[in-house]
Amino acid sequence: MLVVLKKGSTDQDIQTVLDKIKQCGLNGHVSCGVERTVIGVVGQVFPDLQGMLELMTPVDDVIPISKPYKLSSREFQPEKTTIKVGNVTIGGGDIVVMAGPCAVENEQQLLETARAVKAAGANILRGGAFKPSTSPYSFRGLGEDGLKILASARDETGLPVITEVMTPKDVDLVARYADIIQVGARNMQNFILLEEVGKTQKPIMLKRGMAATIQEWLLSAEYILAQGNRQLMLCERGIRTFETYTRNTMDISAIPVINKVSHLPIIADPSHGTGKWYLVTPLAMAAVAAGADGLIIEVHPNPDSALKDGAQSLTFDNFANLMSQVGALASLVSRNPR
Amino acid sequence: MLVVLKKGSTDQDIQTVLDKIKQCGLNGHVSCGVERTVIGVVGQVFPDLQGMLELMTPVDDVIPISKPYKLSSREFQPEKTTIKVGNVTIGGGDIVVMAGPCAVENEQQLLETARAVKAAGANILRGGAFKPSTSPYSFRGLGEDGLKILASARDETGLPVITEVMTPKDVDLVARYADIIQVGARNMQNFILLEEVGKTQKPIMLKRGMAATIQEWLLSAEYILAQGNRQLMLCERGIRTFETYTRNTMDISAIPVINKVSHLPIIADPSHGTGKWYLVTPLAMAAVAAGADGLIIEVHPNPDSALKDGAQSLTFDNFANLMSQVGALASLVSRNPR
Amino acid sequence: MLVVLKKGSTDQDIQTVLDKIKQCGLNGHVSCGVERTVIGVVGQVFPDLQGMLELMTPVDDVIPISKPYKLSSREFQPEKTTIKVGNVTIGGGDIVVMAGPCAVENEQQLLETARAVKAAGANILRGGAFKPSTSPYSFRGLGEDGLKILASARDETGLPVITEVMTPKDVDLVARYADIIQVGARNMQNFILLEEVGKTQKPIMLKRGMAATIQEWLLSAEYILAQGNRQLMLCERGIRTFETYTRNTMDISAIPVINKVSHLPIIADPSHGTGKWYLVTPLAMAAVAAGADGLIIEVHPNPDSALKDGAQSLTFDNFANLMSQVGALASLVSRNPR
Amino acid sequence: MLVVLKKGSTDQDIQTVLDKIKQCGLNGHVSCGVERTVIGVVGQVFPDLQGMLELMTPVDDVIPISKPYKLSSREFQPEKTTIKVGNVTIGGGDIVVMAGPCAVENEQQLLETARAVKAAGANILRGGAFKPSTSPYSFRGLGEDGLKILASARDETGLPVITEVMTPKDVDLVARYADIIQVGARNMQNFILLEEVGKTQKPIMLKRGMAATIQEWLLSAEYILAQGNRQLMLCERGIRTFETYTRNTMDISAIPVINKVSHLPIIADPSHGTGKWYLVTPLAMAAVAAGADGLIIEVHPNPDSALKDGAQSLTFDNFANLMSQVGALASLVSRNPR
Repeated sequence: MLVVLKKGSTDQDIQTVLDKIKQCGLNGHVSCGVERTVIGVVGQVFPDLQGMLELMTPVDDVIPISKPYKLSSREFQPEKTTIKVGNVTIGGGDIVVMAGPCAVENEQQLLETARAVKAAGANILRGGAFKPSTSPYSFRGLGEDGLKILASARDETGLPVITEVMTPKDVDLVARYADIIQVGARNMQNFILLEEVGKTQKPIMLKRGMAATIQEWLLSAEYILAQGNRQLMLCERGIRTFETYTRNTMDISAIPVINKVSHLPIIADPSHGTGKWYLVTPLAMAAVAAGADGLIIEVHPNPDSALKDGAQSLTFDNFANLMSQVGALASLVSRNPR
Repeated sequence: MLVVLKKGSTDQDIQTVLDKIKQCGLNGHVSCGVERTVIGVVGQVFPDLQGMLELMTPVDDVIPISKPYKLSSREFQPEKTTIKVGNVTIGGGDIVVMAGPCAVENEQQLLETARAVKAAGANILRGGAFKPSTSPYSFRGLGEDGLKILASARDETGLPVITEVMTPKDVDLVARYADIIQVGARNMQNFILLEEVGKTQKPIMLKRGMAATIQEWLLSAEYILAQGNRQLMLCERGIRTFETYTRNTMDISAIPVINKVSHLPIIADPSHGTGKWYLVTPLAMAAVAAGADGLIIEVHPNPDSALKDGAQSLTFDNFANLMSQVGALASLVSRNPR
Repeated sequence: MLVVLKKGSTDQDIQTVLDKIKQCGLNGHVSCGVERTVIGVVGQVFPDLQGMLELMTPVDDVIPISKPYKLSSREFQPEKTTIKVGNVTIGGGDIVVMAGPCAVENEQQLLETARAVKAAGANILRGGAFKPSTSPYSFRGLGEDGLKILASARDETGLPVITEVMTPKDVDLVARYADIIQVGARNMQNFILLEEVGKTQKPIMLKRGMAATIQEWLLSAEYILAQGNRQLMLCERGIRTFETYTRNTMDISAIPVINKVSHLPIIADPSHGTGKWYLVTPLAMAAVAAGADGLIIEVHPNPDSALKDGAQSLTFDNFANLMSQVGALASLVSRNPR
Repeated sequence: MLVVLKKGSTDQDIQTVLDKIKQCGLNGHVSCGVERTVIGVVGQVFPDLQGMLELMTPVDDVIPISKPYKLSSREFQPEKTTIKVGNVTIGGGDIVVMAGPCAVENEQQLLETARAVKAAGANILRGGAFKPSTSPYSFRGLGEDGLKILASARDETGLPVITEVMTPKDVDLVARYADIIQVGARNMQNFILLEEVGKTQKPIMLKRGMAATIQEWLLSAEYILAQGNRQLMLCERGIRTFETYTRNTMDISAIPVINKVSHLPIIADPSHGTGKWYLVTPLAMAAVAAGADGLIIEVHPNPDSALKDGAQSLTFDNFANLMSQVGALASLVSRNPR
């Protein structure tokens, strides 16, 4: 941490700041420039130190120089994390595709979809049993019945399942049925939920919040990792911007950024990221070309009668077409373990 | 809901859309323009109808014309909601000021602050016992011990207390101690938490999420109101934008907008809204001038040693100064019940 | 245009609105729903009609249903625009790559770069002679000397050149040297400049403004097209969002959106879009995978001594590597004229 | 400027960076922390140095510590700038109100408005002769005829006039008629226009760009100030965010921020800032309460037949009401020269 003093600061000012740093159990190292004096803080910096120092009269600015996330960083773990789910490996170089309906509506809808996405080459079945919904008057999922339907689709098809948990008290329930537990964008800073899923031994997929910077996302990842659960993958699903044509703005740059600063696998969700079915395949291609480890795609037997998010769901045919395009691309862009 | 068909749509296209609308138990009313045909949907529209219709081949656009929130709207309840807390009335014309530290740190810190803010004219004591924190390595509050300290400060000063609840299982606990329960910005779309606080009989303050539109905020309010709890106030605390000078961008326009479209009282939080203590008073003044029903302000005996958010906390002197300015302004801008 | 009346509007209200519409030389077509009355406006709607109607007391909302851009739309021209520059065709199915330094610094720097990018397979040479710069104290380009250096590099290498014009009075000068004239992001709504370049017979590349919606971008394109110049291509170069890790947020979704709603070729600029050289290749790949017709890439013989934007420039080796990856991808994603 | 080296950097790495700094004619001052080495750059730093250093292999981050704007800063000039226009002083403690129609439509409309706003207490007449318009198919102003009408309204009422210039070649023309020249939001980074208005001896009002940070706005101000024209005021008119209820989001915080970091007077434009007439008065009050030196307000004799921006224009009655409220507030908030 660097403490920049105001122009014209006196020796007395410098001493005041050094004393404060000392009180906090740290050391200061003074460096006098022509215009400004800068004090480097040496020792184990704690998160709220910045605010404290900023308030001091002689201080103009306080600049953190180490990254606030640790366990998720490449510096902490240089090699890519790989996560085994059934016989699928996420982060291992292959493009993993998770597909299925936004919400589990009934057994037939899910089974039919599971068979279709498996036939098209998907590796994992997605489906929501607990659905966050902006309005209390919308469909909100089948709950445990939905989980049971997911489990029976897994039994039939052999596809592992991923499903969302929305609140701490459901973590154990969801963990009993799911192979991967998803934390949704709206819960990215539901810190107690993060700790609860961190306590399970299940792989977790943490979606990026709509207004979250990459750094905040990685700090939320810390909550899970700090509980000892290292089977964590991230999912880019679009951020909120002023553009209204798309539901969100997919931040494709976040994919190579995560690959650079973190060892965690990164999945892309072009269905929520765009909100329009005809943009899903182009953005899926873009995400894979930019280095994503996998995709999560909404597929529905009959999107125009879907109870939720039909507008962004692919038909079976469209999904098969996506898989064939992604397959060709995947063989082009080498994804060897990094 | 209006369904705009593509240019050049045929009678057959129109019939297909009408049939779909009929299947949903609704009626369509066709209106042919020169360039476009528009179908008005008549009947009780349900939330996911829009997505369904958008997917139909002949459809170009679907435009909702009724607002998706009901209980929070001025159309539903023309007169302003007023909330009694002790002998304070929120929404009744007076500017209500809630003040105190970001986090309860210990009994002395809180009591000292409670006495100071009361002396300066504050109506309600704020203080966090459960603190959301972006990083797992930051201070996260004293928990129930913090609630007890709040209760004893209320006993001594007579000030009602407001404090945040972060997760459903703590709702009962917090409700036992708090006079107003706060739902924080990061939990604005934690729908299960919203329902739990909706089941209590306590007044609730719902903060706007960092990336939430005004409409989404009101839809989150519906979750609480729909549980039968009508003692709800909203709190504008800044949204996330590209500007980095301030921690967030206070959306002061949201205050008169809420006053126009909703009957719920609206509070402003310039401490989190700006993140810098020297901007708190100007923005507090702006919020009151724009029609806010109250303020929530961070005050600390010694901001430069605060465990959390010191940079945005006022000293006792600065707070007394704010109160004197706000008092003069309040008497100028008439706040009669609307 | 649809005019939605307030709940409980009377026959008198409806008549008032109909009269107003009639005064504007248009017709209204009334449609009464259960809750609301909607009036469809029939005739040639003019841009400011919406504001006028919104102000009328009985009116709750006014909803435009036709798109405000015409000449740039697929409805106006279903087949893709192709632009011939030398022996390169933009929009014709091949991925066109424009490359070169951010700013022309001297003859040697430009020639060396021109040879290197040509050897690596680039089709067009880029280089700035007039440079917009946020600060008046930064390097702002060589002006006409820069244009002359560009021309001599074209003479030697045969590569057509693209360069930016910043102000109307320089349009003729730049048009004398350039094969493609670029209008930069900061000038996307410099309407007089748009008209001036529209009057030339040169191909134009219009960059998206940092805060421009796709619709506003297409409206700016109308300014150029309306002058009779139809040799226009668009360039996505990132929008401004809250994320600070990247210089801008590349809106990759804009590429398939433009392909859907417009016939204009779409180029991607991952150098400005990301601001970091190590993100340029992943985002270039993403853009091509999403359907871009071409790329514009900053390349510098020695990025760490570049006078401008070194941090986002590729070395010759990195550029050659990008070209080889893009080449493989281009042969995979079929780009037949659409 | 501080250069933070990567973890584990060697003496050789440090020397490489020091050599580079020396080549640039500057000196480096090394400070070794436990985790990181930081080099302070001493001497006159130039704008592109940051990018150069960031590219060096041993460098992790480069942090500028001096502000890039100079002439507009409080450090350069501690006392507030005051600007005399006729017998009005801007920045001198009084709230200056500029009012009039968005666009000059004809002599009668302007004169009628000028008389009404003068009667209500406005100090300066606004009116657009050259209008930027998102669409080429919208009304774009009367040009010089509009300027003449403005001049005759000034002759009759004695009110100085402010009007916008859109392109360098019109600067002299506009300067002949206007008392204050306005540079609009879309031209905030039209650097050549900034320099042209900087060469006039007229007071200038520089609006903030929709996507401009406060720092970028002040850098654009530098372009004007650096030409020797110090009669410059700024105008906050809303920034672009994800919220769509309002046309823009008024960044009220920018007002006290400008007051803190700059000596330039700051005006607020709640008409464009909100886009809705019923939000203009609340936001005008908010701006004054937050420390604005003045307001610019759209007023129209008959907003529902305005050729431009009727939806955000006040009627004469509404404007008189605004003036009476602002007057009361102005006498409350002391505006002594700072």
